[in-house]
Amino acid sequence: MTIAHFSRLEKDYPWIACPLVASAPMLNIATAKLAVAVSSAGGIGFIAGGYDLSGLEQQLIEAQDLVNEANFHDYHLQQSQGDAPILPVGVGFLNWGASLEIALPLIQKYRPCAIWLFAPKTGVDDLLPWTRAIRSEVPYNVKIWVQLCCLEDAIESTEKLQPDVLVIQGCDAGGHGFARSASIVTLLPEVLDQLKSRKPGPTQNIGKPFVVAAGGISDGRGLAATIILGADGCAMGTRFLASPEAQIAKGYQNEILRASDGGVSTVRSTVYDKVRGIYGWPTKYDGRGLINRSYEDIVNQEVTEEENRRLYEEEKLKGDNGWGPQGRMTTYAGTGVGLIRAVMPAAHIVTKIRQDAMGILQKSFVPAKL
Amino acid sequence: MTIAHFSRLEKDYPWIACPLVASAPMLNIATAKLAVAVSSAGGIGFIAGGYDLSGLEQQLIEAQDLVNEANFHDYHLQQSQGDAPILPVGVGFLNWGASLEIALPLIQKYRPCAIWLFAPKTGVDDLLPWTRAIRSEVPYNVKIWVQLCCLEDAIESTEKLQPDVLVIQGCDAGGHGFARSASIVTLLPEVLDQLKSRKPGPTQNIGKPFVVAAGGISDGRGLAATIILGADGCAMGTRFLASPEAQIAKGYQNEILRASDGGVSTVRSTVYDKVRGIYGWPTKYDGRGLINRSYEDIVNQEVTEEENRRLYEEEKLKGDNGWGPQGRMTTYAGTGVGLIRAVMPAAHIVTKIRQDAMGILQKSFVPAKL
Repeated sequence: MTIAHFSRLEKDYPWIACPLVASAPMLNIATAKLAVAVSSAGGIGFIAGGYDLSGLEQQLIEAQDLVNEANFHDYHLQQSQGDAPILPVGVGFLNWGASLEIALPLIQKYRPCAIWLFAPKTGVDDLLPWTRAIRSEVPYNVKIWVQLCCLEDAIESTEKLQPDVLVIQGCDAGGHGFARSASIVTLLPEVLDQLKSRKPGPTQNIGKPFVVAAGGISDGRGLAATIILGADGCAMGTRFLASPEAQIAKGYQNEILRASDGGVSTVRSTVYDKVRGIYGWPTKYDGRGLINRSYEDIVNQEVTEEENRRLYEEEKLKGDNGWGPQGRMTTYAGTGVGLIRAVMPAAHIVTKIRQDAMGILQKSFVPAKL
Repeated sequence: MTIAHFSRLEKDYPWIACPLVASAPMLNIATAKLAVAVSSAGGIGFIAGGYDLSGLEQQLIEAQDLVNEANFHDYHLQQSQGDAPILPVGVGFLNWGASLEIALPLIQKYRPCAIWLFAPKTGVDDLLPWTRAIRSEVPYNVKIWVQLCCLEDAIESTEKLQPDVLVIQGCDAGGHGFARSASIVTLLPEVLDQLKSRKPGPTQNIGKPFVVAAGGISDGRGLAATIILGADGCAMGTRFLASPEAQIAKGYQNEILRASDGGVSTVRSTVYDKVRGIYGWPTKYDGRGLINRSYEDIVNQEVTEEENRRLYEEEKLKGDNGWGPQGRMTTYAGTGVGLIRAVMPAAHIVTKIRQDAMGILQKSFVPAKL
């Protein structure tokens, strides 16, 4: 990332540090507490609005309270002198289900700094009413983030939606993404090359979007590698599951600390939606989670889908014991799960990954012979 | 990679340049011509021995001839003063099928600098007779490379086989690998952390293995990222498909240049083995290739396996027209296929990726604010 590029980002988000670290809007898990902690450390935290937006207003109120208690440098004060302050956290929506009519008044009222759009029902065009409404009916500088899993959607989104930030998600990511997808090793450079080779159209008077990589990034090495591949920063989900601020069952969090060899111990599947009765995801998507009985029993054809759902409901009664390889509770996690060995405060995760990445990038590399 | 680390590698392979670039032993494609071209540019080229070793001796003879014609600095001459010269290319075996009884005399006679082992039938123990025989019955300094797709195999192989080089293959790779696997973004750091934390056993008097990353690396950015993640170099397959030295049909090569968005346009499947009547791969493996009718017709249940095989045989008669999305010919390719836009001499590919990677790594990275 060039300094000029970062400066533009810094103008939008004056509290951030470089390289940018975001926490993903993980459904049910990414609450105000996590989002504010991430932003307080110079990152950008996202609250999960999800697909039904239930609980979102409560989270936004909580975020306001937490921000008022926290220290956001001069930013918050500065903003307060004129208009109502902007909330230095974002909100993520699952667009196959989220209602713009419900979302828009909440955005207008609570002024989150960023809106993260993901997984429209039929295609990029579904997001046009969102970007139009946000740009024309939101009276403050809100930035639009769009998450994508393939080259074609990245290019189409850039041209049609002119997002401020593109989140490029690779196949290592935990939770939902494209069932068939590449890792950021190849997807990121290909997207960047295509963006570079395209001339801006007549309506595109804004610059190229920032590019944030997601999928498998768990520590400074991963962030440094994405910077080398051309990203401006990263978004992490699984890593933040092992933070005290995540709203997560102890049984789930213990699995994140225990599991290793994520390529083998996790799997991409739609079963973890089906057992919970969630059928709204567009067909291209599935979710990556740790393998457990919900998955094994279906692939080995030992239960019907109906029976699997019933067993899942029963398993809920076991509390934290419902997680683990012999459990049934959904345990979304990325392939980087084996790199996560300790629960750390979210702010510490953000500071550490940024510092570790900078250390790696600044370390000079001397060839013995070229 | 530290200089000390590289020096040890350089002692074994005096013609190499840093970072190490290897060409993978792609079945039917990686011939003597490709391997020698890669080594001549300071990389290490591998000849495919495959699972039945047919044609291997012919390739080794050709490699000898090509090496004698080529310039390998002082290395070749130096070796010639005493013993018979070592061949500065390696040979790769698919161990679920390859016969040690056939392989060993060929290794002894032609003296390839490296032996690359991959995909034993039941597990790491299957490779013990190979490493024992190579170490005790091969009277020159041959190095053992072992390719792995998961953490557990990487650790078990390191402990039991004491390989000189571990090839860590991520899910983006074209051709065969684990059906369920992570990309190198997470697999590589996890393997390196585990290797670091392990104490060498009483029999392990050699150093830690070199680590070569494979899967999705197509250009200098990819190689630089793997170095940042902790690898000593990379192995590439798909990138070399677009070289004049690869033994590849024009129809296949054209597809490599045409295809983009590899996460979506390729798929991991066993169908591309089945249509060709290859049933020997252990069950954990499948192969990544560009999607065509052989795949589509099976997943859409439009043909039986038998019918699919028959249609494949018919398609062969179409020559180069048998490739493409509407064709049926197997087109193994990694997710980085969209980054490959031109046919380049293999030596040029090696030199360029190394120089581009070094350029990226040496470029200083100045943070605007930390």
